[in-house]
Amino acid sequence: MPVRFDPPSGTRDFLAAELEAREAAFGTVREVFGRYAFEPLQTPAFERLDVLMGKYGDEGDKLIFKILRRGEHEASGEADLALRYDMTVPLARVVAAHGSQLPTPYKRYTIGPVWRADRPGKDRYREITQCDLDTVGSSSLLADAEVACAVCETVAALGVPSFTMLVNSRLALSGLLRAFGVPGGIGGDVLITLDKLDKLSPAEVIKELAGRGLALDKAESLVDALTAPDATERVRAALRSNDEGAAGLAEIDTVISLARGQIPAERIVFMPRMVRGLSYYTGPIWEVTAAGISGSIAGGGRYDHLIESLGGPDVPATGGSLGVERILALRSGGTAASWRRLDVAVTVMGDELAAASFGLAAVARAAGARASVYLGSSAKLGRQLKWASDSGARFCLIYGRAEQAEGRVTIRDMVTGEQIEVLAGELGARLSRLLAERQGDAAGPAPGRPPSAG
Amino acid sequence: MPVRFDPPSGTRDFLAAELEAREAAFGTVREVFGRYAFEPLQTPAFERLDVLMGKYGDEGDKLIFKILRRGEHEASGEADLALRYDMTVPLARVVAAHGSQLPTPYKRYTIGPVWRADRPGKDRYREITQCDLDTVGSSSLLADAEVACAVCETVAALGVPSFTMLVNSRLALSGLLRAFGVPGGIGGDVLITLDKLDKLSPAEVIKELAGRGLALDKAESLVDALTAPDATERVRAALRSNDEGAAGLAEIDTVISLARGQIPAERIVFMPRMVRGLSYYTGPIWEVTAAGISGSIAGGGRYDHLIESLGGPDVPATGGSLGVERILALRSGGTAASWRRLDVAVTVMGDELAAASFGLAAVARAAGARASVYLGSSAKLGRQLKWASDSGARFCLIYGRAEQAEGRVTIRDMVTGEQIEVLAGELGARLSRLLAERQGDAAGPAPGRPPSAG
Repeated sequence: MPVRFDPPSGTRDFLAAELEAREAAFGTVREVFGRYAFEPLQTPAFERLDVLMGKYGDEGDKLIFKILRRGEHEASGEADLALRYDMTVPLARVVAAHGSQLPTPYKRYTIGPVWRADRPGKDRYREITQCDLDTVGSSSLLADAEVACAVCETVAALGVPSFTMLVNSRLALSGLLRAFGVPGGIGGDVLITLDKLDKLSPAEVIKELAGRGLALDKAESLVDALTAPDATERVRAALRSNDEGAAGLAEIDTVISLARGQIPAERIVFMPRMVRGLSYYTGPIWEVTAAGISGSIAGGGRYDHLIESLGGPDVPATGGSLGVERILALRSGGTAASWRRLDVAVTVMGDELAAASFGLAAVARAAGARASVYLGSSAKLGRQLKWASDSGARFCLIYGRAEQAEGRVTIRDMVTGEQIEVLAGELGARLSRLLAERQGDAAGPAPGRPPSAG
Repeated sequence: MPVRFDPPSGTRDFLAAELEAREAAFGTVREVFGRYAFEPLQTPAFERLDVLMGKYGDEGDKLIFKILRRGEHEASGEADLALRYDMTVPLARVVAAHGSQLPTPYKRYTIGPVWRADRPGKDRYREITQCDLDTVGSSSLLADAEVACAVCETVAALGVPSFTMLVNSRLALSGLLRAFGVPGGIGGDVLITLDKLDKLSPAEVIKELAGRGLALDKAESLVDALTAPDATERVRAALRSNDEGAAGLAEIDTVISLARGQIPAERIVFMPRMVRGLSYYTGPIWEVTAAGISGSIAGGGRYDHLIESLGGPDVPATGGSLGVERILALRSGGTAASWRRLDVAVTVMGDELAAASFGLAAVARAAGARASVYLGSSAKLGRQLKWASDSGARFCLIYGRAEQAEGRVTIRDMVTGEQIEVLAGELGARLSRLLAERQGDAAGPAPGRPPSAG
């Protein structure tokens, strides 16, 4: 017998209220991505070990959950499978495996758990739902703009009140380094430091840049250009000074202008100092930030050679991840309070009336309600009404000897305490009407619907 | 680089058509179970190793996927976690962990993968979606009947054409053994053999029973009673001869009569020789069989002491599993053929028209369509129409210089080849109308809806 009953470190049990809120959010994501004609993909929870190893750097490799060989090989202590660590490596494998069956371009989304053996902490888990969308096989900037629009529309549909998509381009960043005379050898390091301009002061960033080998005057003028009130205009001018920069700027402007037909102008802006950490990006990059959240709630970009480096064919690709766990954490307040286990509770006033009560619950379900009969052992009405109330039921159907004698059912409004009697044959129609009327009430969500839907 | 790109042995990649059919089926299950007021639960993919080990017998233990310890402990070759093997052990853990937060009774369903290192084969996988529903904390037969009704309603909603729920009871089986004078010590073995009456001939079963130590005359009269044309009546008479049998018969009759208010009488019947293999059942048991499928598509029963034996509290429980993989296999024909990647395809006739085309796709999406612009590199209309056709698009929006000059959009019906021109400002309304009209067509599913919904 195990002594501990909590779920394994870094994982969670999702009970109904939270799970339904999560599923409703995932449903919203599916709905928006689906309208953009991204199609769903689901890969197995585990992959062959060699498919995953070496793809995430040394640190990443250590965080992969490895699965022991089975049967006679178990004693070897060796692993041959491992839990999915992200959604991009499985995508590369699928493109390699099913290429001929897939459309070109292949626009896919995927929503599901990934597993990482990070040190668990507050809001840091080892089983995380990830939500990716990618277009594989198109080098058109329309594909980048489409991803950007789909992500912004989803974030809005999920109810994130105030968000901004920051757009930049790896080409523009290269052009920026060139315009400010950063030596090629330290370009990557310089970008990593510039990425900290949100957290560190300009002086601290200048110091770190100098420490990385950039001449102090260059470091100062670079940081100055990126943090000045007219930063965007100064960077634009600098970018126009070389081909790479000009090409990057054109990418950024194209993506933003395409998206602005569908996203309010203030929600999508050029952000010259947004770098994104991952080295594999090759074109436009973007991040979504939201008021009240540090870090980003979505991020991605173009990664034209990554699929090949992961073992797939050499195809252009663009896409990103929606930080659904972070967005869900933002939304979670009040979910449990407004969640309702039952719409209609049905009393069972003794064995001889059980079949009739069972039938009344069926009538309520046919009217679209979440309905249940009382399954406890008490025949007392007070006890059963307490159960109805504890379940959050909007109505309770009472059917005792008196009702039986008259061929009627008592409908008790659990909020007002009001009771009405209806003929048994009219119960379904009456319940449909009552539930529809109550749908607009402040008291709770619509009957039969998950609480925080869309 | 991995050499093999197929998913690991015994697992599957689900591409869009199949995945959407699966998700639609799971949605149907959720909808029915939800109306019965079963609430969803999701537990982690893995559990602590000690939570799972020893719960499935020696054979089961060998089929558990074990996860290697991480970091410095990895070299030990030891496991500390393991992938979920079923949904019942996690339920027992949740009841133990979250008991005070859970309602009494706790009616829950769960849909998700379990992993078993069985030898893979046709329609035998190592990653299987399981769908369980259980009521924990009620000893009322109403709970058993409710599970039975919810399962039958779900099976019907999933479109299984011809199914029957077979009902029996462990008490009735004990009574049956007593009525036919089977010695207590070999009762379990006798039941296991009787369970084979579907596959073996009566003579073979009699021989096996004799081999298990049952006197030949007893074996003959037992098998005769169970296989005679009037088996049900003969067994009923035998059961009435002792208390256990009579009590079991009362359980069966109560469950069936409660359910018959909601399930057609021919769909739920007493089946005296239905045993179910698992030893933990304590009351009513049931199985759903369907025409054209060997074995069952659902099964369950009452298991009043299992939760305690798995480490949870001592609470009564009843429930079962829906064999969703088997039901999906039954339904899978034609899914891929009728699946449609796109409702509305939008041409891009050159870079200078791209933004306008991008906007047209947004209009189509706002009208509820799955819509996408062309993301390839050809500016030729023929190529782009081929893409639209390959994607199964119902309509293609054509927007070239001619349309631009006139402020119009050409809508091409991809089935008839007919083309109409509409003012750009009227596109949304026209598309909504066209898509609604085509919804009834035999050509395919409703726009924006998964194909096999409901």
